[in-house]
Amino acid sequence: MPSLNDVSISSDSNSAPGQWNGSDRASVILREAAKLFSERGYGGASMQEIAGAVGITKASLYHFFKNKDEIHSTVVAMSVRRLLDLVEESTADCATAAEKIEAFSRAHATHLSESKAFYFASAEGYHDLVEPGMKLRVQRMRDGYEEKLRMFIREGVDNGEFRELDVKLAARALISCLNWMARWWRPEGPQSAQQLASDYVHLLIAGFRSD
Amino acid sequence: MPSLNDVSISSDSNSAPGQWNGSDRASVILREAAKLFSERGYGGASMQEIAGAVGITKASLYHFFKNKDEIHSTVVAMSVRRLLDLVEESTADCATAAEKIEAFSRAHATHLSESKAFYFASAEGYHDLVEPGMKLRVQRMRDGYEEKLRMFIREGVDNGEFRELDVKLAARALISCLNWMARWWRPEGPQSAQQLASDYVHLLIAGFRSD
Repeated sequence: MPSLNDVSISSDSNSAPGQWNGSDRASVILREAAKLFSERGYGGASMQEIAGAVGITKASLYHFFKNKDEIHSTVVAMSVRRLLDLVEESTADCATAAEKIEAFSRAHATHLSESKAFYFASAEGYHDLVEPGMKLRVQRMRDGYEEKLRMFIREGVDNGEFRELDVKLAARALISCLNWMARWWRPEGPQSAQQLASDYVHLLIAGFRSD
Repeated sequence: MPSLNDVSISSDSNSAPGQWNGSDRASVILREAAKLFSERGYGGASMQEIAGAVGITKASLYHFFKNKDEIHSTVVAMSVRRLLDLVEESTADCATAAEKIEAFSRAHATHLSESKAFYFASAEGYHDLVEPGMKLRVQRMRDGYEEKLRMFIREGVDNGEFRELDVKLAARALISCLNWMARWWRPEGPQSAQQLASDYVHLLIAGFRSD
Protein backbone atom coordinates (compact mmCIF):
# COMPACT_ATOMS: atom_id res chain seq x y z
CA MET A 1 0.00 0.00 0.00
CA PRO A 2 1.61 3.31 -1.01
CA SER A 3 1.79 5.99 1.62
CA LEU A 4 1.46 9.64 0.73
CA ASN A 5 5.18 9.97 1.22
CA ASP A 6 6.01 7.22 -1.23
CA VAL A 7 3.68 8.14 -3.97
CA SER A 8 3.40 11.81 -4.05
CA ILE A 9 5.26 14.33 -2.06
CA SER A 10 8.45 12.79 -0.83
CA SER A 11 11.23 15.33 -1.06
CA ASP A 12 12.81 13.36 -3.87
CA SER A 13 9.87 12.50 -6.02
CA ASN A 14 11.76 11.16 -9.00
CA SER A 15 9.67 8.04 -8.95
CA ALA A 16 6.34 9.86 -9.09
CA PRO A 17 6.07 10.91 -12.75
CA GLY A 18 6.80 7.40 -13.94
CA GLN A 19 4.11 6.03 -11.72
CA TRP A 20 1.47 8.14 -13.47
CA ASN A 21 1.83 5.91 -16.46
CA GLY A 22 2.43 2.82 -14.34
CA SER A 23 0.23 -0.21 -14.57
CA ASP A 24 0.47 -1.10 -10.88
CA ARG A 25 -2.85 -0.94 -9.08
CA ALA A 26 -2.16 2.22 -7.03
CA SER A 27 -1.14 4.17 -10.16
CA VAL A 28 -4.26 3.08 -12.00
CA ILE A 29 -6.43 4.09 -9.04
CA LEU A 30 -4.84 7.53 -8.86
CA ARG A 31 -5.17 8.04 -12.62
CA GLU A 32 -8.84 7.03 -12.74
CA ALA A 33 -9.58 9.08 -9.63
CA ALA A 34 -7.85 12.12 -11.17
CA LYS A 35 -10.11 11.79 -14.21
CA LEU A 36 -13.24 11.61 -12.07
CA PHE A 37 -12.17 14.51 -9.80
CA SER A 38 -11.27 16.67 -12.81
CA GLU A 39 -14.68 16.04 -14.38
CA ARG A 40 -16.92 16.22 -11.30
CA GLY A 41 -14.92 17.76 -8.48
CA TYR A 42 -14.03 16.15 -5.19
CA GLY A 43 -17.62 16.03 -3.99
CA GLY A 44 -18.96 14.61 -7.24
CA ALA A 45 -16.94 11.40 -7.33
CA SER A 46 -17.57 8.54 -4.89
CA MET A 47 -15.35 5.65 -3.77
CA GLN A 48 -17.84 3.39 -5.55
CA GLU A 49 -17.31 5.21 -8.83
CA ILE A 50 -13.53 5.24 -8.47
CA ALA A 51 -13.58 1.48 -7.83
CA GLY A 52 -15.87 1.02 -10.84
CA ALA A 53 -13.55 3.01 -13.12
CA VAL A 54 -10.58 0.90 -12.00
CA GLY A 55 -12.56 -2.32 -12.32
CA ILE A 56 -12.19 -3.46 -8.72
CA THR A 57 -14.60 -3.64 -5.81
CA LYS A 58 -14.99 -0.80 -3.36
CA ALA A 59 -13.65 -3.09 -0.63
CA SER A 60 -10.45 -3.67 -2.64
CA LEU A 61 -10.01 0.07 -3.01
CA TYR A 62 -9.65 0.33 0.76
CA HIS A 63 -6.66 -2.02 0.60
CA PHE A 64 -4.80 0.74 -1.19
CA PHE A 65 -6.13 3.95 0.31
CA LYS A 66 -7.66 4.79 3.68
CA ASN A 67 -10.46 6.90 2.23
CA LYS A 68 -11.46 9.23 -0.61
CA ASP A 69 -9.66 12.11 1.04
CA GLU A 70 -6.36 10.22 0.91
CA ILE A 71 -6.80 9.47 -2.80
CA HIS A 72 -7.77 13.05 -3.51
CA SER A 73 -4.97 14.68 -1.56
CA THR A 74 -2.46 12.32 -3.19
CA VAL A 75 -3.69 13.33 -6.65
CA VAL A 76 -3.48 17.04 -5.80
CA ALA A 77 -0.04 16.76 -4.21
CA MET A 78 1.36 14.62 -7.07
CA SER A 79 0.19 17.19 -9.57
CA VAL A 80 1.71 20.18 -7.78
CA ARG A 81 4.92 18.22 -7.13
CA ARG A 82 5.16 17.30 -10.82
CA LEU A 83 4.63 20.93 -11.84
CA LEU A 84 7.42 22.02 -9.50
CA ASP A 85 9.76 19.29 -10.74
CA LEU A 86 9.15 20.21 -14.38
CA VAL A 87 9.82 23.87 -13.62
CA GLU A 88 12.97 22.97 -11.70
CA GLU A 89 14.36 20.69 -14.43
CA SER A 90 13.56 22.91 -17.35
CA THR A 91 14.92 26.14 -15.94
CA ALA A 92 18.16 24.65 -14.56
CA ASP A 93 20.30 25.23 -17.65
CA CYS A 94 18.92 28.61 -18.75
CA ALA A 95 21.24 31.59 -18.84
CA THR A 96 19.10 34.72 -19.01
CA ALA A 97 16.02 35.73 -17.02
CA ALA A 98 14.01 35.76 -20.26
CA GLU A 99 15.06 32.17 -21.01
CA LYS A 100 14.16 31.07 -17.49
CA ILE A 101 10.73 32.66 -17.73
CA GLU A 102 10.08 30.99 -21.06
CA ALA A 103 11.23 27.59 -19.74
CA PHE A 104 9.06 28.06 -16.64
CA SER A 105 6.01 28.78 -18.79
CA ARG A 106 6.64 25.91 -21.15
CA ALA A 107 7.00 23.58 -18.16
CA HIS A 108 3.58 24.72 -16.93
CA ALA A 109 2.16 24.01 -20.40
CA THR A 110 3.89 20.63 -20.50
CA HIS A 111 2.22 19.63 -17.25
CA LEU A 112 -1.14 20.68 -18.65
CA SER A 113 -0.73 18.76 -21.89
CA GLU A 114 0.84 15.66 -20.33
CA SER A 115 -1.51 15.34 -17.39
CA LYS A 116 -4.73 17.18 -18.03
CA ALA A 117 -6.76 15.24 -15.47
CA PHE A 118 -4.17 15.72 -12.72
CA TYR A 119 -3.84 19.38 -13.67
CA PHE A 120 -7.55 20.06 -13.31
CA ALA A 121 -8.10 17.81 -10.30
CA SER A 122 -5.37 19.79 -8.60
CA ALA A 123 -6.29 23.28 -9.82
CA GLU A 124 -9.90 22.91 -8.75
CA GLY A 125 -9.30 20.54 -5.85
CA TYR A 126 -6.91 22.54 -3.74
CA HIS A 127 -9.75 24.10 -1.77
CA ASP A 128 -11.13 20.67 -0.90
CA LEU A 129 -8.00 19.53 0.93
CA VAL A 130 -9.08 18.92 4.48
CA GLU A 131 -6.08 17.60 6.39
CA PRO A 132 -4.29 20.74 7.69
CA GLY A 133 -0.76 19.29 7.33
CA MET A 134 -1.35 18.27 3.71
CA LYS A 135 -3.04 21.58 2.92
CA LEU A 136 -0.02 23.44 4.29
CA ARG A 137 2.48 21.35 2.32
CA VAL A 138 0.61 21.82 -0.93
CA GLN A 139 0.20 25.53 -0.20
CA ARG A 140 3.98 25.81 0.32
CA MET A 141 4.66 24.03 -2.98
CA ARG A 142 2.28 26.37 -4.80
CA ASP A 143 3.84 29.42 -3.16
CA GLY A 144 7.27 28.08 -4.16
CA TYR A 145 6.09 27.78 -7.75
CA GLU A 146 4.89 31.40 -7.93
CA GLU A 147 7.94 32.66 -6.02
CA LYS A 148 10.21 30.97 -8.57
CA LEU A 149 8.69 33.02 -11.37
CA ARG A 150 8.95 36.20 -9.33
CA MET A 151 12.61 35.40 -8.65
CA PHE A 152 13.33 35.11 -12.38
CA ILE A 153 11.60 38.42 -13.12
CA ARG A 154 13.40 40.11 -10.22
CA GLU A 155 16.69 38.73 -11.55
CA GLY A 156 15.95 40.30 -14.93
CA VAL A 157 15.22 43.65 -13.28
CA ASP A 158 18.37 43.49 -11.15
CA ASN A 159 20.70 42.61 -14.01
CA GLY A 160 19.23 45.26 -16.32
CA GLU A 161 17.64 42.78 -18.70
CA PHE A 162 14.22 44.21 -17.79
CA ARG A 163 13.12 47.70 -16.84
CA GLU A 164 11.97 48.55 -13.32
CA LEU A 165 8.56 46.91 -12.99
CA ASP A 166 6.07 45.55 -10.48
CA VAL A 167 7.45 42.00 -10.15
CA LYS A 168 4.39 40.62 -8.38
CA LEU A 169 2.02 42.01 -11.00
CA ALA A 170 4.19 40.79 -13.87
CA ALA A 171 4.33 37.27 -12.43
CA ARG A 172 0.60 37.32 -11.90
CA ALA A 173 -0.07 38.46 -15.47
CA LEU A 174 1.90 35.56 -16.89
CA ILE A 175 0.34 33.02 -14.52
CA SER A 176 -3.09 34.40 -15.46
CA CYS A 177 -2.37 33.73 -19.14
CA LEU A 178 -1.18 30.19 -18.35
CA ASN A 179 -4.08 29.40 -16.04
CA TRP A 180 -6.66 30.83 -18.39
CA MET A 181 -5.12 28.96 -21.31
CA ALA A 182 -5.80 25.74 -19.41
CA ARG A 183 -9.51 26.58 -19.56
CA TRP A 184 -9.77 26.79 -23.33
CA TRP A 185 -6.76 25.04 -24.86
CA ARG A 186 -7.51 21.70 -26.56
CA PRO A 187 -4.85 19.12 -27.52
CA GLU A 188 -6.47 18.70 -30.93
CA GLY A 189 -6.25 22.46 -31.64
CA PRO A 190 -3.75 24.08 -34.03
CA GLN A 191 -1.14 25.09 -31.43
CA SER A 192 0.66 23.09 -28.77
CA ALA A 193 0.28 24.35 -25.20
CA GLN A 194 4.05 24.88 -25.12
CA GLN A 195 3.99 27.06 -28.23
CA LEU A 196 1.16 29.15 -26.82
CA ALA A 197 3.05 29.57 -23.55
CA SER A 198 6.11 30.79 -25.48
CA ASP A 199 3.96 33.24 -27.44
CA TYR A 200 2.56 34.71 -24.23
CA VAL A 201 6.04 35.02 -22.76
CA HIS A 202 7.40 36.82 -25.81
CA LEU A 203 4.44 39.22 -25.80
CA LEU A 204 4.83 40.02 -22.10
CA ILE A 205 8.59 40.15 -22.08
CA ALA A 206 8.54 42.80 -24.78
CA GLY A 207 6.92 44.95 -22.08
CA PHE A 208 9.50 43.99 -19.49
CA ARG A 209 12.55 44.85 -21.59
CA SER A 210 14.69 47.75 -20.51
CA ASP A 211 15.79 48.79 -23.99
CA MET B 1 -44.54 39.01 -16.04
CA PRO B 2 -41.28 40.11 -17.66
CA SER B 3 -40.31 38.50 -20.91
CA LEU B 4 -36.70 37.86 -21.80
CA ASN B 5 -36.87 40.75 -24.19
CA ASP B 6 -38.06 43.22 -21.58
CA VAL B 7 -35.72 42.30 -18.82
CA SER B 8 -32.50 41.35 -20.34
CA ILE B 9 -31.45 41.46 -23.89
CA SER B 10 -33.64 43.92 -25.69
CA SER B 11 -31.55 45.80 -28.21
CA ASP B 12 -31.83 48.94 -26.07
CA SER B 13 -31.22 47.59 -22.65
CA ASN B 14 -31.02 50.89 -20.82
CA SER B 15 -33.63 49.73 -18.38
CA ALA B 16 -31.77 46.58 -17.38
CA PRO B 17 -29.01 47.85 -15.07
CA GLY B 18 -31.49 49.82 -12.95
CA GLN B 19 -33.62 46.74 -12.52
CA TRP B 20 -30.74 44.87 -10.89
CA ASN B 21 -31.17 47.09 -7.87
CA GLY B 22 -34.92 47.24 -8.29
CA SER B 23 -37.29 46.13 -5.58
CA ASP B 24 -39.92 44.79 -7.97
CA ARG B 25 -40.47 41.08 -7.65
CA ALA B 26 -38.85 40.04 -10.95
CA SER B 27 -35.66 41.94 -10.12
CA VAL B 28 -35.47 40.38 -6.68
CA ILE B 29 -35.96 36.92 -8.17
CA LEU B 30 -33.19 37.46 -10.71
CA ARG B 31 -30.85 38.83 -8.06
CA GLU B 32 -31.40 35.95 -5.64
CA ALA B 33 -31.18 33.41 -8.46
CA ALA B 34 -27.89 34.96 -9.64
CA LYS B 35 -26.50 34.51 -6.12
CA LEU B 36 -27.54 30.87 -5.99
CA PHE B 37 -26.27 30.11 -9.51
CA SER B 38 -22.94 31.81 -8.81
CA GLU B 39 -22.47 29.76 -5.64
CA ARG B 40 -23.73 26.36 -6.81
CA GLY B 41 -23.97 26.43 -10.57
CA TYR B 42 -27.10 26.00 -12.67
CA GLY B 43 -27.58 22.38 -11.64
CA GLY B 44 -27.05 23.05 -7.94
CA ALA B 45 -29.90 25.52 -7.42
CA SER B 46 -33.56 24.46 -7.54
CA MET B 47 -36.73 26.46 -8.14
CA GLN B 48 -37.65 25.64 -4.54
CA GLU B 49 -34.43 27.24 -3.28
CA ILE B 50 -34.83 30.31 -5.47
CA ALA B 51 -38.38 30.76 -4.18
CA GLY B 52 -37.11 30.32 -0.62
CA ALA B 53 -34.38 32.94 -1.08
CA VAL B 54 -36.94 35.42 -2.42
CA GLY B 55 -39.43 34.57 0.31
CA ILE B 56 -42.25 33.43 -1.94
CA THR B 57 -43.72 30.03 -2.73
CA LYS B 58 -42.51 27.95 -5.62
CA ALA B 59 -45.95 28.32 -7.20
CA SER B 60 -45.63 32.11 -7.13
CA LEU B 61 -42.25 31.87 -8.83
CA TYR B 62 -43.97 30.34 -11.85
CA HIS B 63 -46.09 33.49 -12.18
CA PHE B 64 -42.94 35.34 -13.12
CA PHE B 65 -40.86 32.80 -15.01
CA LYS B 66 -41.77 29.76 -17.05
CA ASN B 67 -39.02 27.57 -15.56
CA LYS B 68 -35.52 27.56 -14.09
CA ASP B 69 -33.98 27.71 -17.52
CA GLU B 70 -35.76 31.00 -18.24
CA ILE B 71 -34.48 32.51 -14.99
CA HIS B 72 -30.98 31.25 -15.65
CA SER B 73 -30.73 32.38 -19.24
CA THR B 74 -32.11 35.80 -18.25
CA VAL B 75 -29.41 36.15 -15.58
CA VAL B 76 -26.66 35.13 -18.04
CA ALA B 77 -27.92 37.40 -20.81
CA MET B 78 -28.38 40.39 -18.46
CA SER B 79 -24.83 40.01 -17.25
CA VAL B 80 -23.27 39.84 -20.71
CA ARG B 81 -25.48 42.71 -21.89
CA ARG B 82 -24.40 44.83 -18.93
CA LEU B 83 -20.74 44.08 -19.61
CA LEU B 84 -21.15 45.15 -23.23
CA ASP B 85 -23.02 48.32 -22.26
CA LEU B 86 -20.34 49.29 -19.74
CA VAL B 87 -17.62 48.73 -22.34
CA GLU B 88 -19.57 50.74 -24.92
CA GLU B 89 -20.23 53.68 -22.59
CA SER B 90 -16.78 53.88 -21.09
CA THR B 91 -14.80 53.71 -24.31
CA ALA B 92 -16.97 56.15 -26.27
CA ASP B 93 -15.04 59.31 -25.39
CA CYS B 94 -11.50 57.92 -25.46
CA ALA B 95 -9.03 59.31 -27.96
CA THR B 96 -6.12 56.87 -28.20
CA ALA B 97 -6.09 53.09 -28.53
CA ALA B 98 -4.28 52.85 -25.19
CA GLU B 99 -7.06 54.88 -23.51
CA LYS B 100 -9.74 52.72 -25.08
CA ILE B 101 -8.04 49.53 -23.90
CA GLU B 102 -7.74 50.89 -20.39
CA ALA B 103 -11.39 51.98 -20.36
CA PHE B 104 -12.43 48.58 -21.71
CA SER B 105 -10.54 46.80 -18.94
CA ARG B 106 -11.84 49.08 -16.20
CA ALA B 107 -15.38 48.48 -17.48
CA HIS B 108 -14.83 44.73 -17.15
CA ALA B 109 -13.59 45.28 -13.59
CA THR B 110 -16.55 47.55 -12.83
CA HIS B 111 -18.95 44.83 -13.87
CA LEU B 112 -17.13 42.35 -11.63
CA SER B 113 -17.16 44.64 -8.59
CA GLU B 114 -20.71 45.93 -9.08
CA SER B 115 -22.35 42.61 -9.87
CA LYS B 116 -20.24 39.75 -8.63
CA ALA B 117 -23.10 37.24 -8.53
CA PHE B 118 -24.23 38.07 -12.07
CA TYR B 119 -20.62 38.01 -13.25
CA PHE B 120 -20.00 34.50 -11.93
CA ALA B 121 -23.42 33.10 -12.78
CA SER B 122 -22.75 34.23 -16.32
CA ALA B 123 -19.07 33.24 -16.59
CA GLU B 124 -19.74 29.72 -15.34
CA GLY B 125 -23.27 29.40 -16.64
CA TYR B 126 -22.77 30.04 -20.31
CA HIS B 127 -22.27 26.34 -21.02
CA ASP B 128 -25.57 25.50 -19.34
CA LEU B 129 -27.65 27.58 -21.75
CA VAL B 130 -29.93 25.13 -23.48
CA GLU B 131 -32.21 27.09 -25.78
CA PRO B 132 -30.28 27.35 -29.08
CA GLY B 133 -31.55 30.84 -29.96
CA MET B 134 -30.55 32.22 -26.57
CA LYS B 135 -27.20 30.46 -26.68
CA LEU B 136 -26.48 32.01 -30.06
CA ARG B 137 -27.45 35.52 -28.95
CA VAL B 138 -25.26 35.32 -25.86
CA GLN B 139 -22.41 33.86 -27.92
CA ARG B 140 -22.68 36.79 -30.33
CA MET B 141 -22.57 39.28 -27.47
CA ARG B 142 -19.50 37.59 -26.03
CA ASP B 143 -17.80 37.52 -29.42
CA GLY B 144 -18.66 41.20 -29.83
CA TYR B 145 -17.02 41.95 -26.49
CA GLU B 146 -13.75 40.23 -27.43
CA GLU B 147 -13.83 41.68 -30.95
CA LYS B 148 -14.12 45.17 -29.47
CA LEU B 149 -10.85 44.74 -27.62
CA ARG B 150 -9.16 43.33 -30.71
CA MET B 151 -10.42 46.33 -32.69
CA PHE B 152 -8.82 48.75 -30.23
CA ILE B 153 -5.51 46.89 -30.35
CA ARG B 154 -5.63 46.72 -34.15
CA GLU B 155 -6.34 50.46 -34.23
CA GLY B 156 -3.21 51.03 -32.13
CA VAL B 157 -1.13 48.94 -34.51
CA ASP B 158 -2.57 50.68 -37.57
CA ASN B 159 -2.00 54.23 -36.29
CA GLY B 160 1.54 53.45 -35.12
CA GLU B 161 0.72 53.75 -31.42
CA PHE B 162 1.69 50.07 -31.01
CA ARG B 163 4.28 47.93 -32.75
CA GLU B 164 3.29 45.11 -35.10
CA LEU B 165 1.92 42.38 -32.85
CA ASP B 166 -0.37 39.38 -32.76
CA VAL B 167 -3.66 41.17 -32.05
CA LYS B 168 -5.57 38.03 -31.14
CA LEU B 169 -2.90 36.90 -28.68
CA ALA B 170 -2.61 40.37 -27.14
CA ALA B 171 -6.38 40.58 -26.61
CA ARG B 172 -6.39 37.11 -25.12
CA ALA B 173 -3.55 37.96 -22.73
CA LEU B 174 -5.44 40.93 -21.35
CA ILE B 175 -8.73 39.05 -21.09
CA SER B 176 -6.85 36.24 -19.30
CA CYS B 177 -5.60 38.71 -16.69
CA LEU B 178 -9.11 40.13 -16.23
CA ASN B 179 -10.80 36.74 -16.06
CA TRP B 180 -8.20 35.30 -13.71
CA MET B 181 -8.43 38.40 -11.51
CA ALA B 182 -12.11 37.61 -11.03
CA ARG B 183 -11.09 34.33 -9.43
CA TRP B 184 -8.96 35.81 -6.67
CA TRP B 185 -9.88 39.49 -6.30
CA ARG B 186 -11.82 40.36 -3.13
CA PRO B 187 -13.72 43.65 -2.62
CA GLU B 188 -12.26 43.94 0.89
CA GLY B 189 -8.69 43.65 -0.43
CA PRO B 190 -6.22 46.54 -0.74
CA GLN B 191 -6.86 47.35 -4.43
CA SER B 192 -10.03 48.08 -6.34
CA ALA B 193 -10.73 45.83 -9.31
CA GLN B 194 -10.54 48.92 -11.54
CA GLN B 195 -7.09 49.85 -10.26
CA LEU B 196 -5.84 46.31 -10.83
CA ALA B 197 -7.27 46.32 -14.35
CA SER B 198 -5.42 49.58 -15.07
CA ASP B 199 -2.19 48.11 -13.69
CA TYR B 200 -2.46 45.09 -15.99
CA VAL B 201 -3.16 47.33 -18.98
CA HIS B 202 -0.14 49.53 -18.27
CA LEU B 203 2.09 46.47 -17.90
CA LEU B 204 0.87 44.91 -21.14
CA ILE B 205 0.73 48.12 -23.14
CA ALA B 206 4.41 48.73 -22.40
CA GLY B 207 4.95 45.62 -24.50
CA PHE B 208 2.65 46.85 -27.27
CA ARG B 209 4.30 50.26 -27.70
CA SER B 210 6.10 50.96 -30.90
CA ASP B 211 8.69 53.31 -29.40
